[in-house]
Amino acid sequence: MKDMTNLDAYEVGYDIPAKPGMDEADIQTPCLVLDLDALERNIKKMGDYAKAHNMRHRAHGKMHKSVDVLKLQMEMGGALGVCCQKVSEAEVFVRGGIKEVLVSNQVRDPAKIDRLAQLPKHGANIIVCVDDVANVADLSAAAKKHGTELGVFVEIDCGAGRCGVTTTPAVVEIVEAVQAAENLTYKGIQAYQGAMQHMDSFTDRQVKIDAAVAQVKDAVEALKAKDIETELVSGGGTGSYYFESNSGLYNELQCGSYAFMDADYGRILDKDGNRIDAGEWENAFFILTSVMSHAKADKAICDAGLKAQSVDSGLPFVYGRDDVEYIKCSDEHGVISDPEGVLKVNEKLRLVPGHCDPTANVHDWYVGVRNGKVECVWPVSARGKAY
Amino acid sequence: MKDMTNLDAYEVGYDIPAKPGMDEADIQTPCLVLDLDALERNIKKMGDYAKAHNMRHRAHGKMHKSVDVLKLQMEMGGALGVCCQKVSEAEVFVRGGIKEVLVSNQVRDPAKIDRLAQLPKHGANIIVCVDDVANVADLSAAAKKHGTELGVFVEIDCGAGRCGVTTTPAVVEIVEAVQAAENLTYKGIQAYQGAMQHMDSFTDRQVKIDAAVAQVKDAVEALKAKDIETELVSGGGTGSYYFESNSGLYNELQCGSYAFMDADYGRILDKDGNRIDAGEWENAFFILTSVMSHAKADKAICDAGLKAQSVDSGLPFVYGRDDVEYIKCSDEHGVISDPEGVLKVNEKLRLVPGHCDPTANVHDWYVGVRNGKVECVWPVSARGKAY
Repeated sequence: MKDMTNLDAYEVGYDIPAKPGMDEADIQTPCLVLDLDALERNIKKMGDYAKAHNMRHRAHGKMHKSVDVLKLQMEMGGALGVCCQKVSEAEVFVRGGIKEVLVSNQVRDPAKIDRLAQLPKHGANIIVCVDDVANVADLSAAAKKHGTELGVFVEIDCGAGRCGVTTTPAVVEIVEAVQAAENLTYKGIQAYQGAMQHMDSFTDRQVKIDAAVAQVKDAVEALKAKDIETELVSGGGTGSYYFESNSGLYNELQCGSYAFMDADYGRILDKDGNRIDAGEWENAFFILTSVMSHAKADKAICDAGLKAQSVDSGLPFVYGRDDVEYIKCSDEHGVISDPEGVLKVNEKLRLVPGHCDPTANVHDWYVGVRNGKVECVWPVSARGKAY
Repeated sequence: MKDMTNLDAYEVGYDIPAKPGMDEADIQTPCLVLDLDALERNIKKMGDYAKAHNMRHRAHGKMHKSVDVLKLQMEMGGALGVCCQKVSEAEVFVRGGIKEVLVSNQVRDPAKIDRLAQLPKHGANIIVCVDDVANVADLSAAAKKHGTELGVFVEIDCGAGRCGVTTTPAVVEIVEAVQAAENLTYKGIQAYQGAMQHMDSFTDRQVKIDAAVAQVKDAVEALKAKDIETELVSGGGTGSYYFESNSGLYNELQCGSYAFMDADYGRILDKDGNRIDAGEWENAFFILTSVMSHAKADKAICDAGLKAQSVDSGLPFVYGRDDVEYIKCSDEHGVISDPEGVLKVNEKLRLVPGHCDPTANVHDWYVGVRNGKVECVWPVSARGKAY
């Protein structure tokens, strides 16, 4: 009997869904497919925009969790580095050679603070967010222990309703504590208005960002009145980057989803009232799925269910098809309404998932395709890195 | 500079959230925690039930995707083997030494059929489901090519509305094709009434299963009239196993969720009108999470969001706590309503996720705890195995 523990790890279907050079038709499904042409156009477009508006772009790596995609954003889109949400993600990006890493989130657990404080030893500039003055001493002690320096962003909750302080005095208190602490440097303000990114109307989003800008400006000016300069004001997402870029206050963007696009973001409208996936950003990110049963004449069953995506923001749509519709999702199956019975068993479809970030997090691999051929197979490097 | 590519893979927080022997309080969050005492009681209880009712139990491995949990179900609960939904899952279980494996699903892609047909070479009895007579020749050819035998279940759609044939003539046609094909053996009927498992009312579920039993019985009797014996009738889940066990027709159960329990299953009612997680099955499966920000007095932010769970069946509840409530979920954060301000930063909570299967599929590890100590750390062996 063959010892299956020695199976070639690169045998297609065991551990990877495709091999470079393979026809797209031979990819094992369900898996993630990147349209490399569309991805590169999106990345270049955002890079050009940021450059034209004199904005730094720190691409959000929590979206794709991929060192390879990030490197494309740096090489082709001028991104200066990465932001991410977890220490374990930061570790992956530092191990991948990224030198500018922002953890755009709080780190409170002592073991995680200890891990974070070690990262600068590996050649990376690390910035972390703080929303509680009690966190400052812990970060400082860990950095001192490891002989490293950590940058600090004070996080302002400008509407997301999650982490972050809400008042200018709270910002000033934390900044002063950081300045008084050893091995920490105040680097700026984290102010991401997350809650409004997915509001359909351009004007509704603008109203929200105007309030956020006023709130952040108040804090920056209060610091300035104390002779404290704020080097960076960082935030902005795919639904708002033009507002931050024209605010005269923000100087760093944190966009992520623009590179891939998803169904939920695609539905929001640009200033002319068009869906943003109709021109502003291209769909570059798909779940490739196959029809695996058509025992009922008007329904095709495909092989991408809840374990191939996150449906928190709704069901996926079938890309480029008006004649069939993904209508139901269970653990391993998707039900596709096929009233004309046009789909065949083993036919492949591209699904655009509702929400790209948690969908990418389910998969181990990105299969990059161009002109019908598999060009690359990239690991989702930080998949599952939640701690 | 230290080469981070050589970091100890077992350093806690890099690749595993805990080490055996560690206090539960030191586990890195978010991660999956199994209450081993509760898990073992659930497993033993189902085993005792199946034995008392003379039912085979083929535990559903698609729920936990873990060779270790399955082995516990076999050793402590008398399970005869596993069922799973994907060829890649079957490969994991076969590599893990499991000898009885049912793929309770269709396999249509030629590459997958080829992989499936190789598995018997590794000492396993493999059964696969068929709902299309066109699939029979492909399975037969692959088994012949590899010199193996595959068992076949004909899948009847008895209410799930996914794969499966719906008429007795269609069942008979497939069985006759299987009997005429080389290297295939007709083993029985797959008839899982998936759609009713989560109906709250015991009586509503009973009505649905009565219809399913009548439908399957018709097919089995039509086969018998042609002198074709049906060795196995397989199905039944956590919301229905007592119906199948008392049907006089089914002889094999496929329960999975009973071992872990989740919020959505927990809400369904037993015959006395009690939630099934109030006595029938214990919660043994949790997302352990930590409070990471409490900048707003009445809201605690925890570190388990969409990347630590699937919310397809609703938000998780906080286990054993009436004073706080998980009210909102974003990618990396959960918002916990804490009106009295009782939670502290770094305090740990156990969440019971809405749906156990796709939640397990997000994580790499199960941390098994007993009496406040980490006893084992098990891989989610088939995590991400979707093809």
